[in-house]
Amino acid sequence: MKFFTEYMTYNTKNHREYINITLDVDNVLKKSGIKEGMVLVSAMHITAGVYVNDAESGLIKDIEEWIQKIAPEGPDYYHHRTGEVNGDAHLKNLLIGHQVIVPVTGGRLDLGPWQQIYYAEFDGQRRKRLIIKVMGE
Amino acid sequence: MKFFTEYMTYNTKNHREYINITLDVDNVLKKSGIKEGMVLVSAMHITAGVYVNDAESGLIKDIEEWIQKIAPEGPDYYHHRTGEVNGDAHLKNLLIGHQVIVPVTGGRLDLGPWQQIYYAEFDGQRRKRLIIKVMGE
Amino acid sequence: MKFFTEYMTYNTKNHREYINITLDVDNVLKKSGIKEGMVLVSAMHITAGVYVNDAESGLIKDIEEWIQKIAPEGPDYYHHRTGEVNGDAHLKNLLIGHQVIVPVTGGRLDLGPWQQIYYAEFDGQRRKRLIIKVMGE
Repeated sequence: MKFFTEYMTYNTKNHREYINITLDVDNVLKKSGIKEGMVLVSAMHITAGVYVNDAESGLIKDIEEWIQKIAPEGPDYYHHRTGEVNGDAHLKNLLIGHQVIVPVTGGRLDLGPWQQIYYAEFDGQRRKRLIIKVMGE
Repeated sequence: MKFFTEYMTYNTKNHREYINITLDVDNVLKKSGIKEGMVLVSAMHITAGVYVNDAESGLIKDIEEWIQKIAPEGPDYYHHRTGEVNGDAHLKNLLIGHQVIVPVTGGRLDLGPWQQIYYAEFDGQRRKRLIIKVMGE
Repeated sequence: MKFFTEYMTYNTKNHREYINITLDVDNVLKKSGIKEGMVLVSAMHITAGVYVNDAESGLIKDIEEWIQKIAPEGPDYYHHRTGEVNGDAHLKNLLIGHQVIVPVTGGRLDLGPWQQIYYAEFDGQRRKRLIIKVMGE
């Protein structure tokens, strides 16, 4: 059993941003030399998400509008009494989830034809970390 | 460490459908011979989900109504400019999630008494794939 | 490859409750002796959730209000025809998710500085079980 861990740092230009990190995850897998097992891709912050979906710019706009409707920026959340202003980003993290597991088979990410791995930044413009951990043989 | 991977194909009669796949997962586990570890059950499409909940027909109706309310079919999503008409199915996938991990203990799926594994099809009537990957010893 | 499984039982005073279980998970990890790998933390009920977010009391109020808005208690769900009254708790489980994977690196939970593991009870005041399964070396 082998383990290979790498930490990525993302610092987005925009407050919210959706970044296709499939190549980053694939590079870590290749470095690991692992052929069978899985990769855990997990945000290390509580105001960011990780999901698997389509790399299509229209859909990303739909996701942005939807996520704003369901967990809106704007309301004066209780959390803001601490001086924070990112209550919505915490709820967005809960809605989307902060991690995925990608199966590894025959040395490659075992994804369907349209499945791409995204890092979803909900409170950016600063350095945020993500862990990529490959486990297998 | 052993790995055992199987791909299932589902082709639903209806556009949306909720299929109890607990027996399918259990059969793959038995074939694998693995006694300790876990099973990853993950949709390979971006318009389907996998979740764990109750096998109760009323609840499935509630889930269907709820999911339609939160991520409705109908609006003219940006994604539809590509010619697709399934923007809602992508959002439903994000809402429900596309994968679960089932722990394996003593050679069986270590689920609570009411926990059943469901494949949730949000854009069916065609062949869709799911990966079941058992990892352990 | 080592596996170490422990079952926790929670019996909340309130119908809904959010419990920081990070120390419980850390204790199980220490008992396991595992230094590299991961911990699966998974509710064994279909009316409870597990998530990773901030240990801040205002935010927990925000989560409670948000979750009530998105998956409200009150409507007469189809599920209630079985005699149950907890339809909302099933939907809350689907919204939040019932499990997380915590990476383990160098013998410790490899979480970001603000990441805490929560058990979210949506239908409490009775004994509910959670599985903590450590897998690695």
